[in-house]
Amino acid sequence: MQVMKSAAAMQRLAQGWRRAGERVGFVPTMGCLHDGHLSLVRAARRRVGAKGHVVASVYVNPTQFAPHEDLAKYPRDLARDTRLCEDTGVDVLFVPTDEEMYPRPAGAEASTFVVEEAVARGLESVARPTHFRGVTTVVAKLFNLVLPNVAVFGAKDYQQAAVIQRMVRDLHFPIEIVVAPTVREPDGLAMSSRNRYLSAEERPQAAILWRAIQEAHARVRATRRDIPAAKLKPALARLIATQPAARLDYLEFFDPATFEPATLVKRGVHLALAVRVGETRLIDNARLD
Amino acid sequence: MQVMKSAAAMQRLAQGWRRAGERVGFVPTMGCLHDGHLSLVRAARRRVGAKGHVVASVYVNPTQFAPHEDLAKYPRDLARDTRLCEDTGVDVLFVPTDEEMYPRPAGAEASTFVVEEAVARGLESVARPTHFRGVTTVVAKLFNLVLPNVAVFGAKDYQQAAVIQRMVRDLHFPIEIVVAPTVREPDGLAMSSRNRYLSAEERPQAAILWRAIQEAHARVRATRRDIPAAKLKPALARLIATQPAARLDYLEFFDPATFEPATLVKRGVHLALAVRVGETRLIDNARLD
Repeated sequence: MQVMKSAAAMQRLAQGWRRAGERVGFVPTMGCLHDGHLSLVRAARRRVGAKGHVVASVYVNPTQFAPHEDLAKYPRDLARDTRLCEDTGVDVLFVPTDEEMYPRPAGAEASTFVVEEAVARGLESVARPTHFRGVTTVVAKLFNLVLPNVAVFGAKDYQQAAVIQRMVRDLHFPIEIVVAPTVREPDGLAMSSRNRYLSAEERPQAAILWRAIQEAHARVRATRRDIPAAKLKPALARLIATQPAARLDYLEFFDPATFEPATLVKRGVHLALAVRVGETRLIDNARLD
Repeated sequence: MQVMKSAAAMQRLAQGWRRAGERVGFVPTMGCLHDGHLSLVRAARRRVGAKGHVVASVYVNPTQFAPHEDLAKYPRDLARDTRLCEDTGVDVLFVPTDEEMYPRPAGAEASTFVVEEAVARGLESVARPTHFRGVTTVVAKLFNLVLPNVAVFGAKDYQQAAVIQRMVRDLHFPIEIVVAPTVREPDGLAMSSRNRYLSAEERPQAAILWRAIQEAHARVRATRRDIPAAKLKPALARLIATQPAARLDYLEFFDPATFEPATLVKRGVHLALAVRVGETRLIDNARLD
């Protein structure tokens, strides 16, 4: 496995692959890898085959964090990430610096941004209004450096994956986007690098997101009638409130194609929620079917 | 010469060239071609050589026009454009429809935009606040469809070329941007598709933009001292006002690297101006040296 720090060298390598007609699969991450990330690497490998190239990037992108968020303390462990990538069959690990990703020749700040304005509304964008602009901008940059045929994102960050899909369609990036299923701990907690923030007391309580999703599933399956969202939301909020460390940020039902809020909950409707467990903000989502 | 209307077919063709390691030069235009455009085509050919491919696009991009602007009456003459491209050695003429450039499957409007926020301030953006967002967005789309190694823009639209250069740098597009010199009529009027709006009475008066630039040149060359912009601006405004149909929109001196306004005018400072001649808004610019 090659570890590349230079954006220019990464792009040259990618251009060489393109010219040779070789397929490239790409998994962008913020590092501190867990089994969820590794499942994305395996999905990329399946898409490009043994002769293709799988690139993973580890880059904690500053522009998707607000000033009050956890950029400084976001967990980093490049030695372990490198080992895990090597073991999972990554061909190139791309670990650019901020200077490589946001170059400033002649002292000028990076001033170009990619914004998505339909799917990037509501849900995560309420608590994190500048988050998706940072995500779309850095992913556009990474796409232009790695030049992949296929890029794999995790379903845990459902809205992020939808925003990326919309960006790729609207800007005509010649890239197939694959959204791979969320990988979960035995108690249902979605794997996330932020889970390691949880204290021993908070960790079991964090399973409440998954339990709320299961409860919504059960209620939808238990009836043939549509359930008013205005009735189901408070029931799930009460369930979440049974955990002393948990504070609900949002819980929304919506049409997964349009992201329009759903006032009636039935099979096919998507549920997304964000819960603070202690100081740690966790998200999860599922299609109810 | 091939004429392509389908974005997907254009992209497949470009991907084939990429895989074959063949160079691609690109000239995006809004059509109604004149010698200025054709000089860009020739510049693209010089960059990619006889074995390379030169693509020109003709697309009047609606998102760079404000509602009150001249989108509907913007001149179109595809038969003539096709002939001129063929005669100038264009290999592929790409003429997408709005539906191809801004696809809306499932009824969803295009919702992704590329914005540049440093160079796209002042000058043209004052009268046309949403203009450059439309330009950067459509050019990013075209770049992803044509996948060029080099793209050529005209120096007449100086700020536009600078915005594109900044976008390419910031988003790491693997594309070299060439800015080719402005081509002028015998009396100095910069060639522009909008010149055909000018009446027989207005046409000679339109040379006043070039005469103002020449006057600024002469004044800078006539002295070793820096000239206060506050003194030179009104002098040039008075010169422009000698033409009865001319109304000055803006005339600015600035540092061409940073686009910061220059309070002192000397060699190396850039001058840009916009003048309405009758109903027609014309722009021009030059480096003073």
